Amino acid sequence: MTPYFTALMHEMTSRARGAARVLAAAPDATKSDALRKAAAEIRTAEDAILAANALDMAEGRAKGLSPAMLDRLLLDATRLAGVADAVEAVAALKDPVGDIIDETHRPNGLMMQRVRVPVGVIAIIYESRPNVTVDAAALALRSGNAVILRGGSEAAHSNRALHTAFIAGLDKAGIPADAVQFVPVQDREFVGALLRAQGQIDMVIPRGGRSLVERVQTEARVPVLAHLDGICHTYVHSAADPAMAEAVVVNAKMRRTGICGSLETLLIDQDYPQPAQLIGKLIDAGCEVRADDMLMELDARTVSAEEADWGTEYLDSIISAKMVSGVDEAVTHIARYGSQHTEAIITTNQAAADQFLATCDSAIVMHNSSTQFADGGEFGLGAEIGIATGRLHARGPVALEGLTTYKWIVRGNGQIRP
Amino acid sequence: MTPYFTALMHEMTSRARGAARVLAAAPDATKSDALRKAAAEIRTAEDAILAANALDMAEGRAKGLSPAMLDRLLLDATRLAGVADAVEAVAALKDPVGDIIDETHRPNGLMMQRVRVPVGVIAIIYESRPNVTVDAAALALRSGNAVILRGGSEAAHSNRALHTAFIAGLDKAGIPADAVQFVPVQDREFVGALLRAQGQIDMVIPRGGRSLVERVQTEARVPVLAHLDGICHTYVHSAADPAMAEAVVVNAKMRRTGICGSLETLLIDQDYPQPAQLIGKLIDAGCEVRADDMLMELDARTVSAEEADWGTEYLDSIISAKMVSGVDEAVTHIARYGSQHTEAIITTNQAAADQFLATCDSAIVMHNSSTQFADGGEFGLGAEIGIATGRLHARGPVALEGLTTYKWIVRGNGQIRP
Repeated sequence: MTPYFTALMHEMTSRARGAARVLAAAPDATKSDALRKAAAEIRTAEDAILAANALDMAEGRAKGLSPAMLDRLLLDATRLAGVADAVEAVAALKDPVGDIIDETHRPNGLMMQRVRVPVGVIAIIYESRPNVTVDAAALALRSGNAVILRGGSEAAHSNRALHTAFIAGLDKAGIPADAVQFVPVQDREFVGALLRAQGQIDMVIPRGGRSLVERVQTEARVPVLAHLDGICHTYVHSAADPAMAEAVVVNAKMRRTGICGSLETLLIDQDYPQPAQLIGKLIDAGCEVRADDMLMELDARTVSAEEADWGTEYLDSIISAKMVSGVDEAVTHIARYGSQHTEAIITTNQAAADQFLATCDSAIVMHNSSTQFADGGEFGLGAEIGIATGRLHARGPVALEGLTTYKWIVRGNGQIRP
Repeated sequence: MTPYFTALMHEMTSRARGAARVLAAAPDATKSDALRKAAAEIRTAEDAILAANALDMAEGRAKGLSPAMLDRLLLDATRLAGVADAVEAVAALKDPVGDIIDETHRPNGLMMQRVRVPVGVIAIIYESRPNVTVDAAALALRSGNAVILRGGSEAAHSNRALHTAFIAGLDKAGIPADAVQFVPVQDREFVGALLRAQGQIDMVIPRGGRSLVERVQTEARVPVLAHLDGICHTYVHSAADPAMAEAVVVNAKMRRTGICGSLETLLIDQDYPQPAQLIGKLIDAGCEVRADDMLMELDARTVSAEEADWGTEYLDSIISAKMVSGVDEAVTHIARYGSQHTEAIITTNQAAADQFLATCDSAIVMHNSSTQFADGGEFGLGAEIGIATGRLHARGPVALEGLTTYKWIVRGNGQIRP
């Protein structure tokens, strides 16, 4: 490790820890006020931010970034207003810090409470979308955490301009600027230093494509909140209502194919009455169906699925499809090939639904619903820092509560232990 | 990695995953019945277990183990009955699996619940106490987890005999023996394989001395639930009642010096009226007091504290003691030198107590209580798998709930996302 990076990492994390102490004790009103002021500063700095973004766009075009990348990078007046709106929406969310999770009174008179506190110092590592700078900072700050932001090089000018406006708002609310720090170097080696900063960084959240998440999960020695894949399944049970099954499956696959909650593998029960019509609806909607031998016989427009298809997240208008013998085989297939993200059963049979919901071991399990609902906003969480497929701390859509932990507060009147 | 160890690790973890699926769906009554039958088998197998323990004791004496080590290793009829009693006590605990944490009804008719589920596959790595084999297995099983046990070589015969009896009980209750597996090899390389088994082991819990915990925390790529140190502080505020302060401090330090909740550093407010008497009580009780310059002047029997004393967990009749200017300095000292385990303030001033409890960033913070209460049983949890000083998932004393996570269950009637 280059000594400069080590020193920079220690400097940033120790400033962040100091700010985290201030934030942990900050009242709800101070934090929401800081966010409203940050939103106002973003609106005020519109010209500067859009000018910075124009520089990124020009450099991106010169570097030959794809149209999709350039679109992710682009800010205009409407998008920037949306960024500021989102900060105000987070300011209006309920602060989980200070919530009493439970309370115990012991026979000896001791009273124990578990009280929500911020996690501490969170690092966010993301790619080209400049709005993540602001979204992630707002969620971290709302829940009392200090945050270290490391954005992609393509958006460097935009990110710096957004960060400058954001901390100007914090300053006006009396929150130290060290609460939201932006990494000033683009070197990957520095990211490595952050990922190994045990005791200095309490949690890392990667936001971006699979290669970013995979690298963070592989290198990190600090806890990571993330999902690598969203290989979501829908199992159409023998007792599914065909009209519902067709509507839900087509929506789950085709509404937006590029999001992590989109359907990737369709499991059809061997006793489901209208499998050909279901597959036909997908193909009619423009979806390529990669089917097993049984299902291939039902529609000449299907193609043959290979073994690799069962473990592939297409993020495209492609679906793998397989016939299964019942709930057990569906759950076993999902356990083997899935990514513990989101799986659904479509059925009118409550016992089958309950069996699926109980035995399918994913972060989100659904009955008669489109997997496209796998989203913090749709879950009523008001926002989302990401979806987690790890098993500990927080699972599924994660918003403010997932950015908190708890401590035990014990109140006594001089108790000594016998 | 020796291919044999890799193959053994995959074999054990994949059997454990299969058993975890069975356990996740097992009713409460089946799990408690299995534990009661395991306790009965342990009682029945008394002769075999004590004979196995006699072999370990003989080998231990031949190897020259210390009397303290031999005492930790020893089982007799009374201790073994205590082991079986503890399993029955865990069988009687409330099962957290299936608890509904919260429930949301969305305007579109979707209903989301967060429901407690087991973590999955847990590895316990421990040293010479054979009772951990049974205690840890009971807690893991009670909360629906499969467990892989890796005990110290000194207790190998005892552990195997206890494990054999335990799984005989499971078998009689219809729970697969793969739910509780005992590592058959003593090689440290195999422990390394377990610690890196991401996706196969969901959580590792080390139970033992500092060197074991440190090694596990350093090597592990899977989440670890543990505490490395218990450098516990008590801050005697200016408004502390002297009689209470003396009783609580002497108890916190001297009741049992070898447990992680024992007091290691005493912080005395510069305006506390009777510091000399407080230090005198500790020395009278047989404690060596390593004091800063200010406190050294109060009692000629004190010795001078070095910088290293502030970060030392003595686990002995020794305490470091320092004068501080108020709550802020106390909290700052604890943040710098502490281990985020357990800290207490003694005061009759509620505002000072609230400030300390809010700003001291440890797993357990106490007002007017002995730090020796830092224990799952004393917290009313019924048992304890350990005390965690990490910030995520579970903090402080961890019992059954800390061995669970949650999943989201979504119930709909055909909702598609607009």
